[in-house]
Amino acid sequence: MQYFPAPVENLIDHFARLPGIGRKTAQRLAFHILSLPDDEAAAFASALLQAKSEIKFCKCCQNLTTEEICPICASNTRDSSVICVVSDPKDVAAIERTAEFKGKYHVLHGVISPMSHVSPDDIRIKELLARVNSGEVKEVIMATNPDTEGEATAMYISRLLRPFGVRVTRLAYGIPIGSHLEFTDEITLSRALEGRRDI
Amino acid sequence: MQYFPAPVENLIDHFARLPGIGRKTAQRLAFHILSLPDDEAAAFASALLQAKSEIKFCKCCQNLTTEEICPICASNTRDSSVICVVSDPKDVAAIERTAEFKGKYHVLHGVISPMSHVSPDDIRIKELLARVNSGEVKEVIMATNPDTEGEATAMYISRLLRPFGVRVTRLAYGIPIGSHLEFTDEITLSRALEGRRDI
Repeated sequence: MQYFPAPVENLIDHFARLPGIGRKTAQRLAFHILSLPDDEAAAFASALLQAKSEIKFCKCCQNLTTEEICPICASNTRDSSVICVVSDPKDVAAIERTAEFKGKYHVLHGVISPMSHVSPDDIRIKELLARVNSGEVKEVIMATNPDTEGEATAMYISRLLRPFGVRVTRLAYGIPIGSHLEFTDEITLSRALEGRRDI
Repeated sequence: MQYFPAPVENLIDHFARLPGIGRKTAQRLAFHILSLPDDEAAAFASALLQAKSEIKFCKCCQNLTTEEICPICASNTRDSSVICVVSDPKDVAAIERTAEFKGKYHVLHGVISPMSHVSPDDIRIKELLARVNSGEVKEVIMATNPDTEGEATAMYISRLLRPFGVRVTRLAYGIPIGSHLEFTDEITLSRALEGRRDI
C-alpha cells in the first residue's frame, strides 16, 4: 500500500534503486528534495540529464569526457609513450591526485570476470591493443586493482601485449604508508618482502 | 582540482549535498547514473521535478498531497472528531501502517526547537487551532516524538487547546513489544511502571 502521494513514492523508488540506498534512506532523500527550493531541485534534475547527455568516452583512452578527445590525451605535456591501464575512471582520478604520473591512461571500464559474465570482449582491450599497435608506446603500466579479477585481467592483457615488444609493468605491491606491520596481512607482507629494494 | 569532466563533478556535487551522503558515496551514485540507460536517467530527473511541482500541502491537515484536500481528509469513513497531531508526514505513514487509527491527522511540519530557531509560528499550529475551533473535534492525540522537543511541542499545544474544552491525549509511553526489560533504559522503564494498567 502507498502511504505517500504517487509522485513522492515514485521519487522514493528511484532513490531506492541507487546502489547502497535502502528504502528508509531513499525516503529521507526524497523528503529532503521536497524541502529544497524549487530552483535547487530543478538544478539537480538538470545535472542528472546533463551528465547523461554530455558525457562520452574519449576516442583515445576511453576515459569520460565532454569532448571527442579528453584533456589528458589532448595535452602536449603528457608523455604518449607510457600508458597506464586502469579499470575505472575513478582510478584515473586517484592516480592524477598523486601528480606523479606524466604519461597517458587507458580505461578498460571493467575487469574480466567470468563470475559476472564479463569477457575480454566486454572491456576496452581492443582499443588498447590498437593504441599500442600504432607504435608510439614504449611502456604499459598495468594498474588494475590487486584482487583476483584485477590480477587476472592484468595477466591476460600483458600476454596479449607480448608480441608488440613493449615493456609491460605492474604497480608495486607492498605495505601501505602509515600502516603497521603488525596489522598487515600475510600476502601483502610476503609481496613486500619479495619486492624489497636496496636503500 | 577537478578530476572528472564538469557535468560529472556537478552531479557529484548535487548528490553530496543530500543528507548523509558523503563525497565518496556521491561519486558512486553519480557513476551509477552514468551507467543507467538514458530513459531511466530521464525518468529519475522527471521524478524529481514532478515530486517538486505536484506535491502541495493539504488545506486541512497540512499533509503532503497532489490534490487540494488529501485522501484522508476527503474520506467519509474517517472520524473527523479525533485528530492525531504528528510532526512529520512520515509519521502519518507510520501510524497508517498500524491500520488502527480511524481519525484524521494534523501534520505540524516540525517541532518547536529554540536551538534550531524553530518557533511556534514556524510550524502549523495556527491551522490546528482553526480546525479545533470549527467545533467538530472532540479529541486531539499528541503523537509527536517522545524526545525533548517533541514533548515540549506537545505540552505547548495542549496548553493552547485547553480553552477549547477538547480532550487532549498523548501516546502511551512504555516498553516496546519484543524488547527485553534487561536492555530497556531507566526512563522508559519508569514510564512503563507509571503507566501500568490492570490486566
